[in-house]
Amino acid sequence: MRSPITFTGNPLDRADAVRSDPARLAALWARGGRLLQMEGLEPDLDGGALIWTEAGEAPKCETVFLGLDVSGIGHFAPVPAPDQASTAPASFNLWQALNGMDHGEIAIYGAARALVGWHARHRFCARCGGATAPAKGGWQRDCGACGAQHFPRTDPVVIMSVEHEGHLLLGRQPRFPPHRYSALAGFVEPGESIEEAVAREIFEEAGVKVRDVRYVASQPWPFPSSLMIAAHAFADDPALTIDHSELEDARWFTRAEVVEAMHARDRGEDGAAFSAPSRTAVAWHLLADWLED
Amino acid sequence: MRSPITFTGNPLDRADAVRSDPARLAALWARGGRLLQMEGLEPDLDGGALIWTEAGEAPKCETVFLGLDVSGIGHFAPVPAPDQASTAPASFNLWQALNGMDHGEIAIYGAARALVGWHARHRFCARCGGATAPAKGGWQRDCGACGAQHFPRTDPVVIMSVEHEGHLLLGRQPRFPPHRYSALAGFVEPGESIEEAVAREIFEEAGVKVRDVRYVASQPWPFPSSLMIAAHAFADDPALTIDHSELEDARWFTRAEVVEAMHARDRGEDGAAFSAPSRTAVAWHLLADWLED
Ligand SMILES: [Zn+2]
Ligand SMILES: [Zn+2]
Repeated sequence: MRSPITFTGNPLDRADAVRSDPARLAALWARGGRLLQMEGLEPDLDGGALIWTEAGEAPKCETVFLGLDVSGIGHFAPVPAPDQASTAPASFNLWQALNGMDHGEIAIYGAARALVGWHARHRFCARCGGATAPAKGGWQRDCGACGAQHFPRTDPVVIMSVEHEGHLLLGRQPRFPPHRYSALAGFVEPGESIEEAVAREIFEEAGVKVRDVRYVASQPWPFPSSLMIAAHAFADDPALTIDHSELEDARWFTRAEVVEAMHARDRGEDGAAFSAPSRTAVAWHLLADWLED
Repeated sequence: MRSPITFTGNPLDRADAVRSDPARLAALWARGGRLLQMEGLEPDLDGGALIWTEAGEAPKCETVFLGLDVSGIGHFAPVPAPDQASTAPASFNLWQALNGMDHGEIAIYGAARALVGWHARHRFCARCGGATAPAKGGWQRDCGACGAQHFPRTDPVVIMSVEHEGHLLLGRQPRFPPHRYSALAGFVEPGESIEEAVAREIFEEAGVKVRDVRYVASQPWPFPSSLMIAAHAFADDPALTIDHSELEDARWFTRAEVVEAMHARDRGEDGAAFSAPSRTAVAWHLLADWLED
């Protein structure tokens, strides 16, 4: 049942040392460098494959260095205009396209999207308001006014399956497709561990206290820049108090209901009790992990 | 040998719903609210205990809402001036003080430090350069110019023990105290999972390929705003290629050397082979976890 986690498995070598070497970056660009073709944050696709253009003599726009392929060829991505870099979830078209794309290409695209989106939304210094300029091949921005260095942002998010006597707690957000239920999730806040964030979020959203939080898996999620941290936890008391400002509904599902919904998802259908999350989401892996247990 | 992880165990209820209720926040401030006494990002301490002053009629400076104690009393912390909010590691004085402080009070202070430091360093909008103002009790900043909402930043960092045939790989950064070796660490980058970040960082810093990455524990680390994600991994080939721009040294230590260094640490002393990390750091827990295994 297991499949690799979507957005992992980037085949490019990030080549950290190259980033601080402007001469080497320029040479990689000029000698066969490849530029990812994007419209804003969306990928241009040719039959589900990413499209790369020859980088050419000199960059005509701000670009980021994604890494080297096995032949040592430099790969780059273009930073879009600020109004082309929304923090919205994946578009319906992109969501559909992910199903037909190569695993490694999805990961290259995901890294590119997170990074160029960050640049487009961080053209100014949060410390002094001055203009910033890209540095280190796009893995840093420097403030010309106060000298502050800024680094790409990655927001840790916890997402969790909660178990009580053979039942699993799933919820639905108002923006979900009809019938969809998935694992509860929320941002890790300053001053808390992963385990504490899991417990707080489940209590806030569903009024359920949990114990024995166990890490399951992680996934980079470039909408816009999350690190999904998937965990499992147990609840002793199944009584729900749903926070309707966050969730439209939350319910306990039986193992049989989850099995049926996961099988239906494999056929591209909705399950009887609920519509299971896509394989693209780490929530799918949380459900699969629970069923295997 | 186990002890709780420093900076976890905040006894305050973060009371998420209160944050969006300005009237309730004002009432909590006015009716017995307590303001943490800080000098910049450092805590004022009285015999190792945090000092709280009565909040009074109205805030005289920008403050953040930390949460409610068991009596429902609101706790707040002051945002320092920008030049008082460095991103430097803990001061020597603070580092010493942590050893004598209450576990819960350390966690309250850690959350406060991460949050007020973020405010002091994010007075402007990264998107447009305009001035931002605090919102939601200090858990958000809003841009008056373009309307962008900004949220406190938490940077995921991986830190890992690497094992090869009963030996553990530890390294030392130039800024470490003399003789100190600790677990290798680095920031998670956009587009990679925790497991991928662990493998990349160990290969970048020590030239070692790893397998079977296993999550061990996590720790909020407010210097300035990290989430430490501790993991264990195995290496098949122990040959080291050290990146001296990151590490002063890296070495494989025997189990006996690690045991001796951990016992010495408990006595407040350096070990014979190396000086073990402090109990305050999650690296200590990684070493303890490995010894228990
Ligand atoms: Zn600046
Ligand atoms: Zn703005």
